[in-house]
Amino acid sequence: MHILLTNDDGIHAPGIKALVKSMKSIGEVTVVAPDNEKSAIGHAITIHSPITVKHTRLIDDEVNAYAVHGTPADCIKLAVEVLLSKNLPDIIISGINSGPNLGTDVIYSGTVSGALEGSMMGFPSIAISMSRSQFESYDHAALFVSKIASRVLDCSKISPIAFNINYPVCDEKEVKGTKVTKLGVRKYRNNFIRRKDPRGNWYYWMNGEPENLTQDENSDITAVSNNYISVTPLHFDLTSYDILDKIKWLENENMEY
Amino acid sequence: MHILLTNDDGIHAPGIKALVKSMKSIGEVTVVAPDNEKSAIGHAITIHSPITVKHTRLIDDEVNAYAVHGTPADCIKLAVEVLLSKNLPDIIISGINSGPNLGTDVIYSGTVSGALEGSMMGFPSIAISMSRSQFESYDHAALFVSKIASRVLDCSKISPIAFNINYPVCDEKEVKGTKVTKLGVRKYRNNFIRRKDPRGNWYYWMNGEPENLTQDENSDITAVSNNYISVTPLHFDLTSYDILDKIKWLENENMEY
Repeated sequence: MHILLTNDDGIHAPGIKALVKSMKSIGEVTVVAPDNEKSAIGHAITIHSPITVKHTRLIDDEVNAYAVHGTPADCIKLAVEVLLSKNLPDIIISGINSGPNLGTDVIYSGTVSGALEGSMMGFPSIAISMSRSQFESYDHAALFVSKIASRVLDCSKISPIAFNINYPVCDEKEVKGTKVTKLGVRKYRNNFIRRKDPRGNWYYWMNGEPENLTQDENSDITAVSNNYISVTPLHFDLTSYDILDKIKWLENENMEY
Repeated sequence: MHILLTNDDGIHAPGIKALVKSMKSIGEVTVVAPDNEKSAIGHAITIHSPITVKHTRLIDDEVNAYAVHGTPADCIKLAVEVLLSKNLPDIIISGINSGPNLGTDVIYSGTVSGALEGSMMGFPSIAISMSRSQFESYDHAALFVSKIASRVLDCSKISPIAFNINYPVCDEKEVKGTKVTKLGVRKYRNNFIRRKDPRGNWYYWMNGEPENLTQDENSDITAVSNNYISVTPLHFDLTSYDILDKIKWLENENMEY
């Protein structure tokens, strides 16, 4: 199995190193990841400036790696269309992100966009995220991914699925199991801190804690807060099919003006 | 009606000016838009650097405007939570984008993310895009938005809808009408041009024409190519509900390792 890894915390982040180590035990690993942190970059791609690439090696020179001056979505496009075009990956894994990617927040996530871009290009893909204090390890989450990877490949044979995985904030012995979930709802309060710069101009820092909303019992947010690993299948069709019939009045709009 | 305008081409782009002019005739307009071009920025938000804001006025000093050093999604968050918190908008409109935002491409679009962020925050929202040669005008597309805005408001009373509108590449007299559509599929070929920099290092430019795929007859791509204005309702729930039952095997995964 050829495994392509990316992330949004940058190629030298501890989360991706934990994934390299665990995935090396089940196949050939190539890393194509941003050369610096790209958190909250969403599904941005770089079309107005050139993308530079540095070839390197990771983990005792054993793993082929490319540091890309671009976004996670850039990394996946460049990997599939240029860098690995003669040795395509079987599966794409993005992470392990430092911090959760839950509920409506996934739309802002560079980690998730790496996996979503993978599935858009036809590859089974996994995004994995966890909150980690400095004393905790990514190893168990990385091991979990390596254990499910071949079955993810199997069940993606008909159409490639993007899995969004969140590992709970607890010791590995306290993990109760795995839940297949839907995305919950995240809203933030007091998002902006206002300060003056040295020249007297106001500027703003985006900030904010998620509001404590009632969540669906089958949501990813509920699963993780109950110490389950949450797995949500994602798609990239933003059409709101439920609404189509309700806005048919637009087709009768008179265009004579 | 208080109308909040944003875009991803920057506050001085001609597309947003056409919108300001047409929307001024039906209500109070405030512009909160990026201070420079942010095409293909997706749903990125700025969390690792401060966001500066310059207050200005547009169109003969008649319209209140803020130039934001950030993304379209930043603009909407900042507008709702800070700049317009005491005079909230009734509707949010993003555009008019220079170039189409069709099919799977919408996931990369800054214009669409402005509208989607609006609907995530509870506001009825419209993204509007068109291909425009230098001899064509945004005026008819802008007029179309002003004509439908109050009905968009009405039908969003139960839950706020984000509308993705694409105006066809034709003279306004050739526009056949409006179609309510779903997103089509876009794929690109030969996406990267490789060049050497002055120091002998390779770099890449993302490029590529969309492949000529067979499109669903109800897709946005089909509608626009037949000279219809396409309107697609969008949602922001990336859960792939069809897949949930097919990956229940994950819940039986043995975690003892």
